[in-house]
Amino acid sequence: MTSFTYDGLPSRIVFGAGAARTTLLGEIDQLGAERILLISSGAEGDTAAQLCAPFAERLVSTFTDVRPHVPVEVAELARKASADADLVLSVGGGSTTGTAKAVALTTGLPIVAVPTTYAGSEVTPVWGMTDKACKTTGTDRRVLPRTVVYDPELTSTLPVDLSVASGLNAVAHCVEAFWAPRRNPVSSAVAEDGIRHLANGLATIAGTPTGMATRSELLLGAYLAGSAFAVAGSGLHHKICHVLGGAFDLPHARTHAIVLPYVLAYNAPNAPEAIDRISRALGRTDVVGGLRALGGELGVPAGLHDLGMTEADIDTVIEDILSIAPADNPTPVTADGLRAILHGAWAGSDPARSTP
Amino acid sequence: MTSFTYDGLPSRIVFGAGAARTTLLGEIDQLGAERILLISSGAEGDTAAQLCAPFAERLVSTFTDVRPHVPVEVAELARKASADADLVLSVGGGSTTGTAKAVALTTGLPIVAVPTTYAGSEVTPVWGMTDKACKTTGTDRRVLPRTVVYDPELTSTLPVDLSVASGLNAVAHCVEAFWAPRRNPVSSAVAEDGIRHLANGLATIAGTPTGMATRSELLLGAYLAGSAFAVAGSGLHHKICHVLGGAFDLPHARTHAIVLPYVLAYNAPNAPEAIDRISRALGRTDVVGGLRALGGELGVPAGLHDLGMTEADIDTVIEDILSIAPADNPTPVTADGLRAILHGAWAGSDPARSTP
Repeated sequence: MTSFTYDGLPSRIVFGAGAARTTLLGEIDQLGAERILLISSGAEGDTAAQLCAPFAERLVSTFTDVRPHVPVEVAELARKASADADLVLSVGGGSTTGTAKAVALTTGLPIVAVPTTYAGSEVTPVWGMTDKACKTTGTDRRVLPRTVVYDPELTSTLPVDLSVASGLNAVAHCVEAFWAPRRNPVSSAVAEDGIRHLANGLATIAGTPTGMATRSELLLGAYLAGSAFAVAGSGLHHKICHVLGGAFDLPHARTHAIVLPYVLAYNAPNAPEAIDRISRALGRTDVVGGLRALGGELGVPAGLHDLGMTEADIDTVIEDILSIAPADNPTPVTADGLRAILHGAWAGSDPARSTP
Repeated sequence: MTSFTYDGLPSRIVFGAGAARTTLLGEIDQLGAERILLISSGAEGDTAAQLCAPFAERLVSTFTDVRPHVPVEVAELARKASADADLVLSVGGGSTTGTAKAVALTTGLPIVAVPTTYAGSEVTPVWGMTDKACKTTGTDRRVLPRTVVYDPELTSTLPVDLSVASGLNAVAHCVEAFWAPRRNPVSSAVAEDGIRHLANGLATIAGTPTGMATRSELLLGAYLAGSAFAVAGSGLHHKICHVLGGAFDLPHARTHAIVLPYVLAYNAPNAPEAIDRISRALGRTDVVGGLRALGGELGVPAGLHDLGMTEADIDTVIEDILSIAPADNPTPVTADGLRAILHGAWAGSDPARSTP
């Protein structure tokens, strides 16, 4: 990478087991906030209430009607709830953070985010909202949380299957960061370490789902993955998964986990730095096999046919993917190339043999 | 590293051979600047004039009286020259960037920096000024350049000995970043890659001093080193070199290059992550020997005695170093430990045998 442009995002990160209990008040004080809108979903309500107990008198409003993909009517209600607030505190996963972002987008209120999953959106300036079935996304620095408090203790009860799905999704963000459009040496270094920590955490999550070492590795990896994605953006893999998800209503995280090794195999001959970095991070030379083995051990289905997609479906999405495929993908994207990737991912055949 | 705090610094980086020629005007436009104070030293005057030719009508003032360590009277003159400016453009090495920072510190003017050495200060919020013999330093986000344009072409005529000294100094910033007080996973990832690129560039600088591949590697490494240092700060090694430099007027860069392997050997037993990262970056398991070999191949003297320090000098600085040694250095800092480090570095003996 001999030329690049990199816009560093200003953000404060506080990371550590117990950090939410011990640092949240100080972080809110540092922003000078006195009137807080708390956003959390029902599931995280108890956690959020406990965390806010030391400064309960500053809560001017609590919004719990969080829904996936941030419907515009939910965003409107959350904005109304923010009328008297000078800060938005979100405690929860991607949908909760997304609701806080929708508030910040129109009000300019600062966000303090306390994530409870491995979504990573808390470190990106990307927002998204849905109006009926139509999703709109955009990028605006106003929605980037000012402070993120990562506390592995809050993730210790996240179910193993959700942790795996969310963790593998984060791995996909890291891998794509090596060839995504706004990649640069910083996002690549961060993504490599993201894979290292996520792989460490995923290797032990089934055996010690509440262990702080495991949860720290996964949450740290999720932070690094989100940071890399925030800067580098998404590449061919995410475009493919986006089209597949929309066309066949496939489950997001498992689709990512199945497809990733095939895109990696397709790009591998022309992405030596990505291969070097993934190889160092996984500690093995066969990176495509390594990634696939990681998914297999974690119960990821072998192929998209396991998710209900049919072989005939493949040809129906080629044009849609081609139309949004990145022009500077390491291996030029062709209809034949896409067909090979999708056929391999559909059948669950050896990715190394699924290139055209 | 299971807990950390990280304040991400906002900064825009543009990197590439020819970037100064092709992007500078656009970057200045992006900041909406119409009245530019150009700061460059006499040596860089021609380069700066050529770069500014496309927007010469916007130069309201040019300041060329740059001096090392930014004397306060120089800072005052530069500030006066900035009276009508809405942007400071610095083209040059650390002293030039430092003069621009002195202006920004009191005026709040944005800086666009075009570095021509491997100092790295263009990505840090640290400023420094000297009043007679006394140096004052501080940290202020106002002095952090808004945009840095890195152009390896501008460094192709930097003499090999200066390139080596400046490059090894950058390596020291990277190594210290692994145990410096504000270290975090991002600064560590960046520092590891910094060592990788600096070592690549240093390996070929003598043979191809004007080669763009070599110069790109060194400048990229210098950027990463500066970024890591900006976040992590400095540790024991820099404290030692600071005291040695002040007490015996030793040359900055060569002192760093000699001392570093001894501090690394001292910390190695208690800094496994640093050893892993340096090992990966250098591609060899004996990191202390690797670092020393790198210096040796580049003509770094074996010991501080080659720079004029005497054996009796060692005991005179132990107390001064102890008083500023970081409390959380991986291996606790003791008088005996310092004596062993300094005696080894003075004599140029095997660092692995120079621990107490």
